[in-house]
Amino acid sequence: MAMFCLMFALRISAQEHPGIMLTKKNIEAVRKGTDTYPLLKKSYQKVKADADKALVESVNVPTPKDAGGGATHEQHKKNYTNMLNCGVAYQISGDKKYATYVESMLLKYAADYNKWPLHPKRKENHQAGKIFWQSLNDFVWQVYTIQGYDMVYEAISPKNREIINAGLFEPMLKFFTVDCKETFDKIHNHGTWDIAAVGMTGYVLNKPEYVQMAIKGSAKDGKTGYLAQIDQLFSPDGYYTEGPYYQRYALLPFIIFAKAINNFQPELKIFEYRNQLLAKAINTSLQLTYTDGTFFPINDAIKSKTYETPELVYGVDIAYADIKPLPDLLSVAERQAEVVVSDAGLKVAADLYAGMATPFSYRPQLIKDGANGKEGGLGILRYGSNEDQQVLLIKAASQGMGHGHFDRLNLLYYDNGVEILPDYGSARFINIESKKGGDYLPENKSWAKQTVAHNTLVVDQTSHHKGNSDVAQKSYPEVLYFKSDNNLQVVSAAERNAYPGVEMIRTTALLKVAELKKPLVIDVFQALSEKPHQYDLPFWYKGHIVDASLKISGFTDQLKPLGENYGYQHIWLNAEQLVKEKAGYLSILNNKRFYTIHFATDNEVNLKVLSLGANDPDMSLVESKAFMLSAPKSNNQTFFNIIETHGRTNTVSETTTGASSALSDLRIISSDKKQVTLSFKVKQKVYTYQINYQNKENFIKLN
Amino acid sequence: MAMFCLMFALRISAQEHPGIMLTKKNIEAVRKGTDTYPLLKKSYQKVKADADKALVESVNVPTPKDAGGGATHEQHKKNYTNMLNCGVAYQISGDKKYATYVESMLLKYAADYNKWPLHPKRKENHQAGKIFWQSLNDFVWQVYTIQGYDMVYEAISPKNREIINAGLFEPMLKFFTVDCKETFDKIHNHGTWDIAAVGMTGYVLNKPEYVQMAIKGSAKDGKTGYLAQIDQLFSPDGYYTEGPYYQRYALLPFIIFAKAINNFQPELKIFEYRNQLLAKAINTSLQLTYTDGTFFPINDAIKSKTYETPELVYGVDIAYADIKPLPDLLSVAERQAEVVVSDAGLKVAADLYAGMATPFSYRPQLIKDGANGKEGGLGILRYGSNEDQQVLLIKAASQGMGHGHFDRLNLLYYDNGVEILPDYGSARFINIESKKGGDYLPENKSWAKQTVAHNTLVVDQTSHHKGNSDVAQKSYPEVLYFKSDNNLQVVSAAERNAYPGVEMIRTTALLKVAELKKPLVIDVFQALSEKPHQYDLPFWYKGHIVDASLKISGFTDQLKPLGENYGYQHIWLNAEQLVKEKAGYLSILNNKRFYTIHFATDNEVNLKVLSLGANDPDMSLVESKAFMLSAPKSNNQTFFNIIETHGRTNTVSETTTGASSALSDLRIISSDKKQVTLSFKVKQKVYTYQINYQNKENFIKLN
Repeated sequence: MAMFCLMFALRISAQEHPGIMLTKKNIEAVRKGTDTYPLLKKSYQKVKADADKALVESVNVPTPKDAGGGATHEQHKKNYTNMLNCGVAYQISGDKKYATYVESMLLKYAADYNKWPLHPKRKENHQAGKIFWQSLNDFVWQVYTIQGYDMVYEAISPKNREIINAGLFEPMLKFFTVDCKETFDKIHNHGTWDIAAVGMTGYVLNKPEYVQMAIKGSAKDGKTGYLAQIDQLFSPDGYYTEGPYYQRYALLPFIIFAKAINNFQPELKIFEYRNQLLAKAINTSLQLTYTDGTFFPINDAIKSKTYETPELVYGVDIAYADIKPLPDLLSVAERQAEVVVSDAGLKVAADLYAGMATPFSYRPQLIKDGANGKEGGLGILRYGSNEDQQVLLIKAASQGMGHGHFDRLNLLYYDNGVEILPDYGSARFINIESKKGGDYLPENKSWAKQTVAHNTLVVDQTSHHKGNSDVAQKSYPEVLYFKSDNNLQVVSAAERNAYPGVEMIRTTALLKVAELKKPLVIDVFQALSEKPHQYDLPFWYKGHIVDASLKISGFTDQLKPLGENYGYQHIWLNAEQLVKEKAGYLSILNNKRFYTIHFATDNEVNLKVLSLGANDPDMSLVESKAFMLSAPKSNNQTFFNIIETHGRTNTVSETTTGASSALSDLRIISSDKKQVTLSFKVKQKVYTYQINYQNKENFIKLN
Repeated sequence: MAMFCLMFALRISAQEHPGIMLTKKNIEAVRKGTDTYPLLKKSYQKVKADADKALVESVNVPTPKDAGGGATHEQHKKNYTNMLNCGVAYQISGDKKYATYVESMLLKYAADYNKWPLHPKRKENHQAGKIFWQSLNDFVWQVYTIQGYDMVYEAISPKNREIINAGLFEPMLKFFTVDCKETFDKIHNHGTWDIAAVGMTGYVLNKPEYVQMAIKGSAKDGKTGYLAQIDQLFSPDGYYTEGPYYQRYALLPFIIFAKAINNFQPELKIFEYRNQLLAKAINTSLQLTYTDGTFFPINDAIKSKTYETPELVYGVDIAYADIKPLPDLLSVAERQAEVVVSDAGLKVAADLYAGMATPFSYRPQLIKDGANGKEGGLGILRYGSNEDQQVLLIKAASQGMGHGHFDRLNLLYYDNGVEILPDYGSARFINIESKKGGDYLPENKSWAKQTVAHNTLVVDQTSHHKGNSDVAQKSYPEVLYFKSDNNLQVVSAAERNAYPGVEMIRTTALLKVAELKKPLVIDVFQALSEKPHQYDLPFWYKGHIVDASLKISGFTDQLKPLGENYGYQHIWLNAEQLVKEKAGYLSILNNKRFYTIHFATDNEVNLKVLSLGANDPDMSLVESKAFMLSAPKSNNQTFFNIIETHGRTNTVSETTTGASSALSDLRIISSDKKQVTLSFKVKQKVYTYQINYQNKENFIKLN
């Protein structure tokens, strides 16, 4: 770190335009590539078609007025996209009309920008922008716009450049660094966008003082700024504390600014910084997806987001071209069906064309959280090919700041291309103006963040840390064990702070036994306390319950909410049944495959069947279903669950096989702080499964 | 008809084996084709792999015991598939082991068949089989098995053939024609399977008397039997009265037996019969699918059934090879990704390989119902390419016997590859033994068949014909008008018998106006009565309501059923709001596109928001949502609805366009028995839309 600071000096290479994603010396090669390599050709055709579409519309720079999703909001977003597209179209085609369009638009912005006050609709609890309702969108605007400007720089007369700089970019730099100083110096993704916008503008306008502020903070002391952000926002495994959805979002300004730094100041060796942290962060983003490309939707997340997102098109292209050309990145680029029309995109498209792609290498792994890697982590277990993969995610990471959910030891299960035990994600209809301007809905707080919305333990109908994120931010789970052998993958973690006086330990394994084709999910959730509590373990599931060990009788003529607070008020109780046997199962049919969830408990439990939607006057909650094991009053409590993945049904040929479970006789033999001993029967074979918390050499013993 | 009867004489061509789908003279060509043409190669590889898999298991012919979905049920189903696969594998590979397997299995059946009593678990209200819980499955078994036998015929010693005939096929022929005589002579799909099994067995065993009974009924007088079934079960447009799901099922024995007749008695020109009725029926089956290949799930239907179903693999292959080689059938075969390893499959695979396929030609059309084509029909409106097609189905067909639903004038809407306004289909988990043996659930009657489960009018909370199918069977709607110009497609139909004293007329159009990209759905539903009634018009929808013209407040702390009978008892009332303005809209987001359903009424209505699931103790009902326009008490009532299909949202790039409606000011200017005059505004343009019931030359007038 000290080394790096010494190396950092105010020396910017001779100015050439363009100089960021597309550089002057490569224009000719990229131009040829758009004729030669199908993916680059297609990507450029799209850019050019969009640019041509922009050109037929007149330049429209409306006075900022609307919230997210509204007309002026969308127009300004469209404008930066248009400027970038026209910039690229100008460089590749050489046709000046594209440059003229960008120039006219920037002159219009330059004429108006200073007249605009802070945006009249201000996003709640967010710093206002001038063009958009939050400053974040202004930063994003400039990250794209400055690239568009850079592309057409040489086509604009010095006089007009002066007008644009004086009317738009210079006041904007001031706004971003002075008015928004707090954000600029904040270790947070909004800060990253601010920094990247300022730094890139500094390079393009040749204003080294702004570059230096961007890299080392407004005080230029390295306590804040780009490098401090890389140090503090990512774990050594390249995990960004807010979770995958924000990781991919946060990543873009990091990598695009890194690319600029690398072009203008290669001697800073930014891609090598912190042991190739940026490459790790890109790879980790990809590892945080299911095989269909969707990000694990933990914390605040839009559920259908995939790695096809533009941020990861940049990420994959730069990782491959500028950091390390791993051939499995090419298959991701292929699925993205797009490259950035740039130096990096050229290389990706060329190598893809040369047939160098290999399937993306998903790996079971523990991704550690925290700047020093010591604040818990995410355990990811994977079995099977990318075409049909069982994936378990155990969330034992830290809170993840304001977008974090109260879901310590949450479990997600995917199989057969779909969600089996899902996470709700966030309560938000992004960009749908009629739903609170596309912003987070009140139900995000009252429902989506609450513990009961997740597949983890709720004690006394209260969320972890009583739903207080400041308190939750101060502590994190401990990962006790992680192993990823092919036939036994295990993650074990403990959470001791979510509920004072209650220790929670979850140990989840993917265990392949000889008798069955698909590995079993062996899930053991222990709560240890000296006082009695109500312990609720919900399983939010997709599919339809088609069988159960006990007769469940749904309430027929009335539904009531499950509780009053911490998300319970949003749940309808559909059925409730005492499980006297302390064991049982439910079978779910989902995407033509069966999932039998067996359970055994050491105290009597109630089986509750639940659906979402109570206390939702605006009908904003999305259909969700769960069953819950609820132990009404006990000190220690062990939930021993096995998810059996079996059989299939084909509704086209109308055949069903393997619908019956091969598992039985789940027993909790003993369970305490040091050891848990369990048994179960697969067909005729009895297995004993032991967890030894204090013996890392023999953590799981299977007989 | 008389002509045909004269031509029919008992003359069967010289016996050769095999002689049905695969014929001796073509074996060599098919064998070569399995090397040459990818689709035939792949299809044969699958057959052979399945045959090889069968061979490693020992022959298993259990004593019949279990209901549908159970072990013995599935084993016997598997056995006929195995025998057919092994038969084909024997013919193509020439390896005798496959023939030996079929022989051993048939000998086992022959040894046991006479010992088996009627099946111990009898399907409610169905005639028992011996091998299966209903005789229907026995017929199906034999349709496949006799083909397997035919394939290996020459490899079995005459002595063993005699044992098999005497122990299995002959008693079976007796069972099918004597014990099951009622079914054999019934004009119904169960009868068709019986007939086909008997007729094909008659050909293969060279027992012409059975062939003659199959073709002309047990009395050989033509009043029943195969030809009578073709005459009475299909409309002149090739529509089978029970609906698409049973049409494709009923079709298989028709076409497979036709193929046998054509091979053994080509002089009967069976494919020419009734103006090429079988070819029409196959084409109509395909026209009764959405562009994703799923059948319109009207009446009792499994929803995920597609034209990839084996019955239509047979249908498409035979239609193409034996009736008329229409190149658009090849693209269906391509999507089916399978051909029958047969003479017909060879031709399809060869022509597909030769690049002759064209996209399947979906056409807007009126498909008439009734043996004479005068019992109503289905109106299908279509707009757009197969990649993104708007489709409306208006059901104005007859009741369709026992599997019919009480849904006169029901409307289904598809767009963008998905259901927008769906039909529930049947309440059934097919082949899932834990759900009532995979059979129809009680909720099929109490819910799925009831009027309120459909997108059509319910009067006084009572189903059409009070839910009595015998009564319903006696009458049918009248199709008033059908037109399918590109910019205006219309279907109009009246139902006068569902509710005594109430005439219902629905006129639905797909109207392309210049101002909008996507056609509008203009839907006018009139009820005319001299007495006051409650009129409920539900819209079952997929997606999520994201906007509405009025503030809807969901019930927060309690849900109650909507009613007590006719399906209303299964519906939870989630919200209820008086629409004082007599007009309004709701916007639904579904698969990233917006659907704004505008409505205007001539009386005040309540807007009710509904979800399915009340009075469902076994939790068998599948999540469904609706809103309902409910006019509490009026004589005449007009519902004027426009579905506007607009905009899009992209959750990967996080952009939204066209979310706002461009429609407004819906007005009912006048509405009576003769004429309805309406107006609405698209952007700034006012349209007047007039329906003239008594003027077919000018049925819809648009200004």
